[in-house]
Amino acid sequence: MLTYSMSDVKGENLYEYIYKCIKCDILGGKLSAGDKLPSKRAFAKNIGVSTITVESAYAQLIAEGYIYSIPKKGYYVTDITMFGNSCHIAQTKAEKKNGGILPDEFEIPHAKSNDATRYFADFVINRTNSKHFPFTTWARIMRDVISTWSEELLVSAPVGGVLKLREAISEHLRQFRGINVEASQIIVGAGTEYLYSLIIQLLGYGKVYALENPGYRKLYNVYRSHNTECIHIPMDGKGVLAKEIARRGADVVHISPSHHFPTGIIMPADRRYDILSWASEKEGRYIIEDDYDSEFRFSGKPVPALFGMDVNDRVIYMNTFTKSLASTIRISYMVLPRTLLNQFNSKLGFYSCTVSNFEQYTLAEFIKRGYFEKHINRMRNYYRKERDILIECIKKSSLANISVIKEENSGLHFLLQTKSSVSDEELIKKAAQSGIRISCLSQYYSDADEAPAHTVIINYSGISHEKIPEAIERLSKSISVQ
Amino acid sequence: MLTYSMSDVKGENLYEYIYKCIKCDILGGKLSAGDKLPSKRAFAKNIGVSTITVESAYAQLIAEGYIYSIPKKGYYVTDITMFGNSCHIAQTKAEKKNGGILPDEFEIPHAKSNDATRYFADFVINRTNSKHFPFTTWARIMRDVISTWSEELLVSAPVGGVLKLREAISEHLRQFRGINVEASQIIVGAGTEYLYSLIIQLLGYGKVYALENPGYRKLYNVYRSHNTECIHIPMDGKGVLAKEIARRGADVVHISPSHHFPTGIIMPADRRYDILSWASEKEGRYIIEDDYDSEFRFSGKPVPALFGMDVNDRVIYMNTFTKSLASTIRISYMVLPRTLLNQFNSKLGFYSCTVSNFEQYTLAEFIKRGYFEKHINRMRNYYRKERDILIECIKKSSLANISVIKEENSGLHFLLQTKSSVSDEELIKKAAQSGIRISCLSQYYSDADEAPAHTVIINYSGISHEKIPEAIERLSKSISVQ
Repeated sequence: MLTYSMSDVKGENLYEYIYKCIKCDILGGKLSAGDKLPSKRAFAKNIGVSTITVESAYAQLIAEGYIYSIPKKGYYVTDITMFGNSCHIAQTKAEKKNGGILPDEFEIPHAKSNDATRYFADFVINRTNSKHFPFTTWARIMRDVISTWSEELLVSAPVGGVLKLREAISEHLRQFRGINVEASQIIVGAGTEYLYSLIIQLLGYGKVYALENPGYRKLYNVYRSHNTECIHIPMDGKGVLAKEIARRGADVVHISPSHHFPTGIIMPADRRYDILSWASEKEGRYIIEDDYDSEFRFSGKPVPALFGMDVNDRVIYMNTFTKSLASTIRISYMVLPRTLLNQFNSKLGFYSCTVSNFEQYTLAEFIKRGYFEKHINRMRNYYRKERDILIECIKKSSLANISVIKEENSGLHFLLQTKSSVSDEELIKKAAQSGIRISCLSQYYSDADEAPAHTVIINYSGISHEKIPEAIERLSKSISVQ
Repeated sequence: MLTYSMSDVKGENLYEYIYKCIKCDILGGKLSAGDKLPSKRAFAKNIGVSTITVESAYAQLIAEGYIYSIPKKGYYVTDITMFGNSCHIAQTKAEKKNGGILPDEFEIPHAKSNDATRYFADFVINRTNSKHFPFTTWARIMRDVISTWSEELLVSAPVGGVLKLREAISEHLRQFRGINVEASQIIVGAGTEYLYSLIIQLLGYGKVYALENPGYRKLYNVYRSHNTECIHIPMDGKGVLAKEIARRGADVVHISPSHHFPTGIIMPADRRYDILSWASEKEGRYIIEDDYDSEFRFSGKPVPALFGMDVNDRVIYMNTFTKSLASTIRISYMVLPRTLLNQFNSKLGFYSCTVSNFEQYTLAEFIKRGYFEKHINRMRNYYRKERDILIECIKKSSLANISVIKEENSGLHFLLQTKSSVSDEELIKKAAQSGIRISCLSQYYSDADEAPAHTVIINYSGISHEKIPEAIERLSKSISVQ
């Protein structure tokens, strides 16, 4: 029977202590997916506390998604699956001719938010639902920040950001991502797009930047807009092809090894080492690791960050709070290898940090007080349920006979490979006529002809639970009639 | 070997004490850029503390950018002159050769805020005093925004920003600056530096960008960091020379016609028309009008904006709330001529706005409810009083006989032209020895030899009324003894 010594409790609530012990054992692997927890009564008796105390601890763990209950059976450790997020739009013929990949929707411009009202359901958009954003906590912390840090709020931060936030991120990375870095290596900026610009200024305009194909159009747009040479590297089932990176003369490669969008591929160790090895072969080669959705992943079997595997200081790690909190909170960060720090400070130290101190201090406190972790856990739980309902509805619909669900354990999207005789363009059009907005895998390829056809991307971060049954019904009809 | 007496430690952690001692020595110049610090073990042994204590102190110094480590080699002192817009450090010979102008001080990074403690008075720094920032109002509006706009707060804004803020700015410009523009022409961004980057991406990397000489080093840094060609245009008493702009092959000229820094020159109408005429002579020529402190004019009629005089759509107007509210609120904006709007949206519409919605909505309400205007009026009065006290103190001091005050009617600084036989470098050093931080006009010239000597820039935004008499007394003594 699970047991913990109550003599270690120091000044915290009993229930909080028990909650922490169990969480720790789940994260640490002592308790595995599917393990049954003792009944509240038996557990309470065993460790000498009241049943209510255990109940509170279990309730907290359920709320955060670590355990779940089956009525009349008991409490079980959650089956830990990978999560991430995403989204997307339709490729025009002109764009196809240009060999471009599609504009992505990760951050939906204003105009698109209006589009949303045109659809019954939108499997492309990626918008935080306001009922999930912890407004009350955020507002309370903002007030605390104003009263506690009024002096500091008006002291300009260096280009990398306020120390307090960089320390909080460093601690977060250490605890939840296994990355050990100093606060000075963390550079905070107003969105990843801005940070890409800093990277280009740091590494140089003359470099050749390589992107995954398929991948986000926005990345391509940023590099091209900065007048740099930008090339596409094809992928196989393990991710981007290391040989092609070398063959095509790239200097910097921009990848998402932990969870690629839109394919959902997780890069295995051998490919990772191939790419690290490519980078170390020549001075000035770098890998940008875009770890945009790593928070939406339990640590059952965490995918390690490439940054942690790199011994040659060739990886720049990037992540963002625009995905994990809200797309309208413009705070992202990158982690520079130590050897790039001096160069960064001497080349770009003259810049001011692009994030306001108010938000930097608020976020620092939000992380430090544990709210960020709680929020992530709550959202992971919510999205898991969303996915389950979706898959159940698909299986019950006529889609079941003409489609295969793929990569459903990763990100806030999965792929729906369908049998269809019409073009992807037609598929999207038909769905739209039924009030359903979808995108297809082919839209993310620089050359759509190379892409697997009829593979619909179901991004479910922007749809509410209640709408799912009808949305799938409509989608099913529009696809089945092809 | 570096050593400190541990007997001076009072109530603080040992590591904190060591950290402070080293920092002080770096700022004070005892430890110079590149100096190697003792190894943790040797140092710990020498001053009789544990290695962990030294390690913590070093970690803090690294986090704050004062020192850096080279793996397997040791710890070294950072070149703090490279910290960007840093503590004013006299121009190095290398910089003079490069024709560079000095780092400007308008936005003080982190490290410099600590420098302030080294001086009795700082006439270089530009920091908002926290007692002037309307925290209570700002916090109240933030709360209102969260309760009223919770849905809108999570709808991503287009690259130009939230419509509500753009409308508020448009109305403000109409009322207080005589500029009539549509909200869609206003582009909001996280600081002017970021907006310059957008302008470069919009107008093109192949253009020749021209800057005023003297002027801000930071501008030069931004353009150069973006790999664009950047040239300096000399000025006469009316401002930048229109003929020289043409002769030197500039495509885009970046000026502050309403109030030039550091000379304080207000560009008269004839020069303005010369420059507008230069721009209209050839396709693709543009003028960037930096109107950074137009809110703070103490007497006479407001100077009209160049933007309003332009009939050929060649002026891009820029202004910022980092000056008028607080340097740590990173909100600036530019106004594009209508003819550039389509190009802007098609080229750069894929970007997300860099300012968080929270702050955009808060600022929009702050302006709309009239608080911004009130704040500006209050600050204008405050700064006018500041200036009056300063001038009075100068007139009473021995400076009266050896100096002339210039350009005192606008902005947050004026010039003090002194009679002195020593170099500007020496002048700055002498003042620093008396605890007064100053900068000289010559530091803002690409070639210091061309500059009028012994002209001290008195930037008074960072000094409190009470300190002025003693500050002037000290400055007067340090200059008079030359």
